[in-house]
Amino acid sequence: MLLQVPRGTKDILPEETPVWQEVESKARRIFSLYNYAEIRTPVFENVTLFKRALGDVTDIVQKQMFVFKQGDDHFVLRPEATASIARAYLENNLGFGVKLRKLFYIGPMFRAERPQKGRLRQFHHIGVEAIGLTNPNLDIEVIELADKLLREFGISNYKFVINSLGCVKDKAKFADLLKQALAKHKKVLCKDCQKRITKNVFRVLDCKNEKCKEITHSLKIGQSYLCGDCKSHFDKVLKGLDKFGIKYEVKEQLVRGLDYYSGVVFEVVHPDLGAQDALGAGGRYDYLFKELANKEIGAVGFAFGEERLMLALPKKESSKKLNVYVMSLGDKAADKSLELVKNLRSAGVSCDFDYSDGSLKSKLNEANKLGARFAIIIGDDEINKGKLVVKFMQEGKQEEVEFVNAVGFIKNILKE
Amino acid sequence: MLLQVPRGTKDILPEETPVWQEVESKARRIFSLYNYAEIRTPVFENVTLFKRALGDVTDIVQKQMFVFKQGDDHFVLRPEATASIARAYLENNLGFGVKLRKLFYIGPMFRAERPQKGRLRQFHHIGVEAIGLTNPNLDIEVIELADKLLREFGISNYKFVINSLGCVKDKAKFADLLKQALAKHKKVLCKDCQKRITKNVFRVLDCKNEKCKEITHSLKIGQSYLCGDCKSHFDKVLKGLDKFGIKYEVKEQLVRGLDYYSGVVFEVVHPDLGAQDALGAGGRYDYLFKELANKEIGAVGFAFGEERLMLALPKKESSKKLNVYVMSLGDKAADKSLELVKNLRSAGVSCDFDYSDGSLKSKLNEANKLGARFAIIIGDDEINKGKLVVKFMQEGKQEEVEFVNAVGFIKNILKE
Repeated sequence: MLLQVPRGTKDILPEETPVWQEVESKARRIFSLYNYAEIRTPVFENVTLFKRALGDVTDIVQKQMFVFKQGDDHFVLRPEATASIARAYLENNLGFGVKLRKLFYIGPMFRAERPQKGRLRQFHHIGVEAIGLTNPNLDIEVIELADKLLREFGISNYKFVINSLGCVKDKAKFADLLKQALAKHKKVLCKDCQKRITKNVFRVLDCKNEKCKEITHSLKIGQSYLCGDCKSHFDKVLKGLDKFGIKYEVKEQLVRGLDYYSGVVFEVVHPDLGAQDALGAGGRYDYLFKELANKEIGAVGFAFGEERLMLALPKKESSKKLNVYVMSLGDKAADKSLELVKNLRSAGVSCDFDYSDGSLKSKLNEANKLGARFAIIIGDDEINKGKLVVKFMQEGKQEEVEFVNAVGFIKNILKE
Repeated sequence: MLLQVPRGTKDILPEETPVWQEVESKARRIFSLYNYAEIRTPVFENVTLFKRALGDVTDIVQKQMFVFKQGDDHFVLRPEATASIARAYLENNLGFGVKLRKLFYIGPMFRAERPQKGRLRQFHHIGVEAIGLTNPNLDIEVIELADKLLREFGISNYKFVINSLGCVKDKAKFADLLKQALAKHKKVLCKDCQKRITKNVFRVLDCKNEKCKEITHSLKIGQSYLCGDCKSHFDKVLKGLDKFGIKYEVKEQLVRGLDYYSGVVFEVVHPDLGAQDALGAGGRYDYLFKELANKEIGAVGFAFGEERLMLALPKKESSKKLNVYVMSLGDKAADKSLELVKNLRSAGVSCDFDYSDGSLKSKLNEANKLGARFAIIIGDDEINKGKLVVKFMQEGKQEEVEFVNAVGFIKNILKE
C-alpha cells in the first residue's frame, strides 16, 4: 500500500521552505519593531472555545472542525488563532498591570473542508492581536502594520477593503436592515441562506452561491446603522489611513465570517489570487471577551494566510547556497577531509562531505546537483603533499592549496 | 464556565518565546552550515503510517495516539516526525538524482499520555534526518551535529549514551538473547513485561516499573550479537567520536522505544532533567524504508525535545528590549506622535505608542513596565515649539530635542 500525505494537506518541501523562513523571519523582525511579542498556543483546544468564540451558526463550527475525543475531553484542531489567544490572554492574566498587550503568532490552522483548489485542510497563519484598548489609532496601527509587512515581502497590487459593523447595538440594527432587505428576495436565495436570514443573517453575505452573491451585491444599506461614536471611530480610522497613504475601498458587504467581529473589519485582496482573493483579514473584536469571560476589553488584529502570501510573492532565486562540497578518495584522505569539513563549518562556511563510495566523477556530479560553489578534492596523493584541490564549480578552473591554508583561502574568496 | 488550555498542554507565553526563537534560529543557522534543508510535513498523518513505521506493539501506537476520523480517513496527530519525513521522502521522490538528502524539522508532536510532570501532550522537536547512505561517517556527523547544537545553545554537562542494535539479523539474535536472559526472571517482571517478552522483548528495556528496571539493568548481554560488519561499523563510529573529542558511554540496555531503529542508537542525557533525563535521541533506521516501501535506503537522524532544552539552557536576561515608548498629551500631539512612531520603526528602532487616554503618570508607568529604554513625551506645548522631550528611563534624566532631529538623536544613542 502506498503511503500518502493526508487528503487535503501538503508537504512543504526543502526547495520551498527557504521562502517560508524568509517571510517568517521578516515578519518576526517587523513585529518586534512594533512591540508585538510572540505567543504559542497549542494547535488544539477544547471544542467549547470555538463554539463560543466563533458562533454556533458559522460554517467553521458547523462543518469544518476536526474534532477528537480523549477521555472525557472533546478537542478540536484550531480553525484559527484569535479565539485561542483570547483564551490564553484570559487564562494567563496577560492583561495584568499593562493597558495593552501586543501579541503575534505564526502557525498551522485546520479546517475539515472538502479538499479543493486554493483550500487546504492544514494551512498557516501569520497574525497579530492587540488586546486592551478601543482607541481608533490602534486600528490604524494594525492596518499600517499589515501594509508594512506586505511591502517588506515585496508584494504589490494589493488593496485594503474596509467596513464597520459598529457596536453590538449597531450590529443588531445592521442585521435587521439586512433581514428586511433580503426578505424581498427570499425565494431566490439558496436553501441554506433562507435559513440563515433568521439564524445568522450576516452569513448570507459570505454565501458562495452565485444567485445569493448577486442579490447581496445589489443591496444598498450604507452605514446608516452606525451610532455617533462608531461613525466617528470609523471616520478617524479612514482619515488615518489617508494620512499614511494606505489605499482602501469601503465595502458595505464586508462582514467577515466569524461572529466575534464588531466595529472596523477589513480584508486585503490581491488580483493574482483568483476566486480566493484575500491575502489576509482582520478587524476589531471588542465583544469576544464579553462572550468568553463577561469582560469589557477592546481588541483588534489581523491574520495573513501564508500559502496566499506565497502565491503573491515576487519570484526570485534563493540566496541560500552551499559553499563547499568536500570529497575524498582513499581511507587516509577521508579522516583528513572530515577534519576540514568540521573546521569549515566552525568558520561559518556551509559545507558538506560526500559520504558515498562513488567515483570522483559521481562525487563531482553530486556537488553540481547540490549547487555547491566549490568542490574540494582530497586524495591520498594530496595528503602526502599536504595539499588539496579546490575546484571552482561555476568557473571550471581549479587551484592547489596547502591543507593548513584551506579554510582561510575559502573564506577570503567568499568575502569578495 | 472558565475556558482553559487543553489538559496536558501549555501555552508558551510572550515572556518565554524569545528563548524559543533564539534556540530555533541558532539551530536553523547551524543546520544550514551542515547542508540540512528544512521540510515541513502536516501535523497529522494517516494512522497506517505510524502503525507500520513505529510498530504495532509500541506504547505510542497502542496507547498514545490522538486519532480522529474524517469521512473515510483515519488521521492521527503525529507522535514523532521521522515516519512522516520518510513518507514525504518516498512520496515526493526526494532521493531522485542525489545520493543523500539531509533534512531538518522543527515543530509540535503529540502523545495522548496521562498528563504528568515532564510529559506534555503537545511537545516540540528539533531534529534532522540524513537519508540515502549507510556510511558510518554519517552517523558520526549526526552525533557531532547534535553535540555542536548543544554547545552553541550554551548547554554543558550532557553525555552521549550509545549502543548498536546491529542489522536485522543481529537485532533478532539480540532479541533471542534477551528473551533467554529474561525468562529466568519472568515471575518478577510486571504483567505487561511478561507479555512483552514474547510480543516485543525490547520494550521490556523501556519499562518504567522499578522491579523490571532492576532486572534489565543487571543483564549482561554485551555486543555478542553483532555481526562482523555491524561490529566494524560501531567501532568506526566510536573511534570517530573519540577523534572529535565527544564524550560517550556505551550502554547495552539502550534500544530506543521505536521499532524502526537498527544499527547505532544514542541518547543525550543531562543530569538536571530528573527522571526524564533525555535531552534528545537518535540513531540509524536503515530498515524503515524496507518496512514502508520495500526499499534499501540507509538513514540516520536525531531529535531534541525543545521543552527539555529549555530546562537545560543557562538562564539569562532576554536581549530583546523595547527602544522607545512614545506618549502624547492632546489631540494635535497624537497625530504628530504617530508620524514619529512610524519614522522610528522605519529607521529600525523598536517603538510603541501609548494608545490609552491615561495621565502622563500612567503612561510613564506603562513605559517602565514595558522596559522601554526611552520615553518620548509630546504635548501641544511641545508641538508649538517644534520640540519633544526624551526621557532616559534608567538614568532618570531628560532632554529637549527638535522634532525633526528626534529619529537621529535616538539612533545615535542606540549606536553607542
